[in-house]
Amino acid sequence: MTEELLDRRDLDFMLHDWLNAGALIDRGTADALIDLSGKLAVEHFLPHFKRNDSDEPRLEGGAVRLQPAIGAALARYAELGLFAAGFPEAQGGMGLPYLLCAASFSCFAAANVATAAYPMLTVANARLIATFGSAAQFEAFARPQIEGRWFGTMCLSEPQAGSSLADVRTRALPDGADALGARYRLTGNKMWISGGDQDVSENIVHLVLAKVPDEDGALPEGTAGISLFIVPKILPDGRRNDVTVAGLNHKMGYRGTANCLLNFGETGGATGWIVGAPGDGLRQMFLMMNEARIGVGIGAAAIGYRGYRLAARYARERLQGRPPGQRGGAPVAIIEHADVKRMLLQQKCYVEGAMALCLYCARLVDTAPERPDDAALLGLLTPIAKTWPSEYGLAANDIAIQIHGGYGYTRDFDVEQLWRDNRLNPIHEGTTGIQAIDLLGRKILRDGTALPILDQRIAATAASAAKTAGLEAHAAALTTAWQAIGETIAALRAGEDARAFDNATPFLHAFGHGVVGWLWLSQAVAAAALAPAGEAERDFVAAKRHACRFFFECEMPKVGPLLAFVASASDVAAAAPSRMF
Amino acid sequence: MTEELLDRRDLDFMLHDWLNAGALIDRGTADALIDLSGKLAVEHFLPHFKRNDSDEPRLEGGAVRLQPAIGAALARYAELGLFAAGFPEAQGGMGLPYLLCAASFSCFAAANVATAAYPMLTVANARLIATFGSAAQFEAFARPQIEGRWFGTMCLSEPQAGSSLADVRTRALPDGADALGARYRLTGNKMWISGGDQDVSENIVHLVLAKVPDEDGALPEGTAGISLFIVPKILPDGRRNDVTVAGLNHKMGYRGTANCLLNFGETGGATGWIVGAPGDGLRQMFLMMNEARIGVGIGAAAIGYRGYRLAARYARERLQGRPPGQRGGAPVAIIEHADVKRMLLQQKCYVEGAMALCLYCARLVDTAPERPDDAALLGLLTPIAKTWPSEYGLAANDIAIQIHGGYGYTRDFDVEQLWRDNRLNPIHEGTTGIQAIDLLGRKILRDGTALPILDQRIAATAASAAKTAGLEAHAAALTTAWQAIGETIAALRAGEDARAFDNATPFLHAFGHGVVGWLWLSQAVAAAALAPAGEAERDFVAAKRHACRFFFECEMPKVGPLLAFVASASDVAAAAPSRMF
Repeated sequence: MTEELLDRRDLDFMLHDWLNAGALIDRGTADALIDLSGKLAVEHFLPHFKRNDSDEPRLEGGAVRLQPAIGAALARYAELGLFAAGFPEAQGGMGLPYLLCAASFSCFAAANVATAAYPMLTVANARLIATFGSAAQFEAFARPQIEGRWFGTMCLSEPQAGSSLADVRTRALPDGADALGARYRLTGNKMWISGGDQDVSENIVHLVLAKVPDEDGALPEGTAGISLFIVPKILPDGRRNDVTVAGLNHKMGYRGTANCLLNFGETGGATGWIVGAPGDGLRQMFLMMNEARIGVGIGAAAIGYRGYRLAARYARERLQGRPPGQRGGAPVAIIEHADVKRMLLQQKCYVEGAMALCLYCARLVDTAPERPDDAALLGLLTPIAKTWPSEYGLAANDIAIQIHGGYGYTRDFDVEQLWRDNRLNPIHEGTTGIQAIDLLGRKILRDGTALPILDQRIAATAASAAKTAGLEAHAAALTTAWQAIGETIAALRAGEDARAFDNATPFLHAFGHGVVGWLWLSQAVAAAALAPAGEAERDFVAAKRHACRFFFECEMPKVGPLLAFVASASDVAAAAPSRMF
Repeated sequence: MTEELLDRRDLDFMLHDWLNAGALIDRGTADALIDLSGKLAVEHFLPHFKRNDSDEPRLEGGAVRLQPAIGAALARYAELGLFAAGFPEAQGGMGLPYLLCAASFSCFAAANVATAAYPMLTVANARLIATFGSAAQFEAFARPQIEGRWFGTMCLSEPQAGSSLADVRTRALPDGADALGARYRLTGNKMWISGGDQDVSENIVHLVLAKVPDEDGALPEGTAGISLFIVPKILPDGRRNDVTVAGLNHKMGYRGTANCLLNFGETGGATGWIVGAPGDGLRQMFLMMNEARIGVGIGAAAIGYRGYRLAARYARERLQGRPPGQRGGAPVAIIEHADVKRMLLQQKCYVEGAMALCLYCARLVDTAPERPDDAALLGLLTPIAKTWPSEYGLAANDIAIQIHGGYGYTRDFDVEQLWRDNRLNPIHEGTTGIQAIDLLGRKILRDGTALPILDQRIAATAASAAKTAGLEAHAAALTTAWQAIGETIAALRAGEDARAFDNATPFLHAFGHGVVGWLWLSQAVAAAALAPAGEAERDFVAAKRHACRFFFECEMPKVGPLLAFVASASDVAAAAPSRMF
């Protein structure tokens, strides 16, 4: 049933033929999970995809009401144990690898990302508490989420501090202690809270960043003063906590995910328990943010992927025009036109490249605890896993509309909503510009360990490809592009510190294309190594290789001009006086 | 009042300092028209911009109802004589040059493109009848449109024949003649008819493409058999014609423009009068299509332009983050961040480049009747004027959302709707792919006259720029890029005919960037020639030149890889088997 959402053969190829999921999980269990996920996604998530758009969450009497189909779908998701899938058995989970959880999630995101966002956040919330919280906190707040009875949120942004967490003003005042740890009273406003309120789960666990004022009542400066608190909607004694929904954001897409402005402490202070030590909030929250960033990437890839599938289906069914030079005769399916094939190839490159990137990173999540190299590589690739699918998955959705022509612009077809839904992804969980600074600054210029690991893996793939018939030229092109990336980084290191980030976003795009080009070549090598039995398998292998060729002919050449611009240390952006706009 | 929509200084620069509108119209009249247009657009079009989205046209009892604000705005537009602005005085018009009409229209499109679409189509319809119709047809059908009492449509597409007009199946059977000419009875279905029905104008004039069957009842094949008919909603004797609204398309954006499926001849045949000779329909319709294509370009540029203005305003007002390396202290406006400046520069390049392109073409419309070179150049540039603003104006709207962050994704701000509205433009009036074939085939490979004229003008601009301090390098870059375009065309001419169009769309993008790069350089030369008095003027000149620099640093380098791909005659798209998708 996954076929309506994604190409199941492709998913299996990535998981098994390419990423060797067999080292993590037996094939039967893996297949059963994907079968189950595809079936549940098609039967319970897909049917209310459009209703999530037309019947958006409403604020009534201070509470958010969702359309009932969301609750029904998520109840089924909980019944099947999918909230628990990725947790160790000791925590009440199934102990499945993150790689498989990510593949499972891609089915739900493809079907209905707005409904799928609730479990994505809930699982990440529970994982943070399981990692950094006390045993009592785990039992009280994480376990009900793992069981799918309570949902979770992450409360970072504030109206005056969107991406600038150093400016967080929510205050936490000490208020004694109990079995759940040191207790605080929180006051402040949190903006853009996905799932901030809803009428589906029994309770909501907010993970809130706040600052503890010093003796003079002043908040500590910067991010070092940020602490992390568990603030449930309903307190353990059954009373409502002092958390109110001040407003609901009316979004262009992704509408089923209620997005709230929450006020904490309107009547004296919301009760919260600190997680870990004071001042350690941001470091802890990064666990959730990093998981959410990969989750955003998977979602963006999956939304793009479904758009591609719909476009290919439409192109096979829609008859129009004739081959070049032919007049008269019956019209052909538009998939026969070279320009439509070009658009489909571009989508295929984007969505399968994005999915490959996210699954590769998901596999690193599984191995990172035991392999420091994988942990370092995961850190380096996380901003790419967040942004590349968001930017190019969206581009794929744009092309899906174009293939549908006027029909694609109407709400009778799904592709316009997929495009609107996906537009959120370059914004939330850190905009593309923020990710670019993270990549270039924290992950490259300030840390010399991760990049050489990536260099090595890329060199290894290029070496394999150089020995594979038909991939030699791509191997050389990848090596050239990656050398240029290395030289650009060297130029940035040698340049003026204060100016290094001026062109971070063009650098991110070049780096991202380099990474995805590598993963395309790696997939092509894996496909070439298959011994395809039957026509369908031979077609699958040929299609992977053809898409790889397209990426190297049409996408990799974009890297050179971007790098030349970055390496030139151009001040065309930075030197523009703001009054010129 | 235009400042809320567009940069008035920039519009005046383009019209007067750059395009020398003074040769066509006196400055006072031009200023009065733009003043009037800006005021009317802000007072009567802008206020219902969002309502056009939330309160879309409804089909009630077979008739389309629009929200009343549309009718009120267009009544004011008619009262002020703006439907008539571009027509000669002998036809009841004001005799204003098309260049000024285009500039006027850009104000309305920026404010509310869905409402502005009605007069755009009406004026183009009336112009077609004025050009090809009889005197009686002009009086009966064009004059009421010039007066703004009746509106017009263009009925080309059919459900089975979107872009493929050769497949039109609407039939026209001879039915005598009267003072309005040879009469026919039409039967068929027309899809995607903007303004196909509404309750605002007294009558609607449909211009319908149909085929006259031969004696055996067979329709002539191909486009040569297409004729053009005037089919009014209400007949001259006051009876309703046999035209029914079979459905209303529910679009993602551009919603105020009612988009209909019309059935002609459900009860015996709709009465229509032929325009010109049988079989001459498509040639005549191209007058309207070409005008509509430039109109689409202007609209797309204007929608992008307003998004840019909104983004710049937001970036000046929104405080967040600090300069690189600075911790603590007050946050700065985000316009101070290099990455935000980069995004604003990219938008500025796109929207001012798109507007310059459209106004340049509009000026060619004015001079084409007397200057064959200008007519040829207009034909060559029309597919670029249609697609470049549609593709890159949309890209500018995307960036405007990104600058707004999460707020930009909400319906509380205008930028998301501008993005949705603009998404139609790469589709209607011929998709980007169709325009690419028109450019490469009809305008370049099959016609050797227009390109040398463009080559000459580009060379002239490069020569001027080479003598202008600070523009020398851009002049050389333009010359290099344009040579590469010429070489690519030579390669396509030398290649296999049947394969020439395989990569027409990448060629269109490269060609379009070359053209817009030329117009940016031309603007920079004109700005450099100004003798700016005062700080604001000096800033304006500096900003134009800085944006030109950005275009040459960040956009022109995209041309090389595209051309290399096209010149390689790659079959990566054409050779992809359709079963691979």
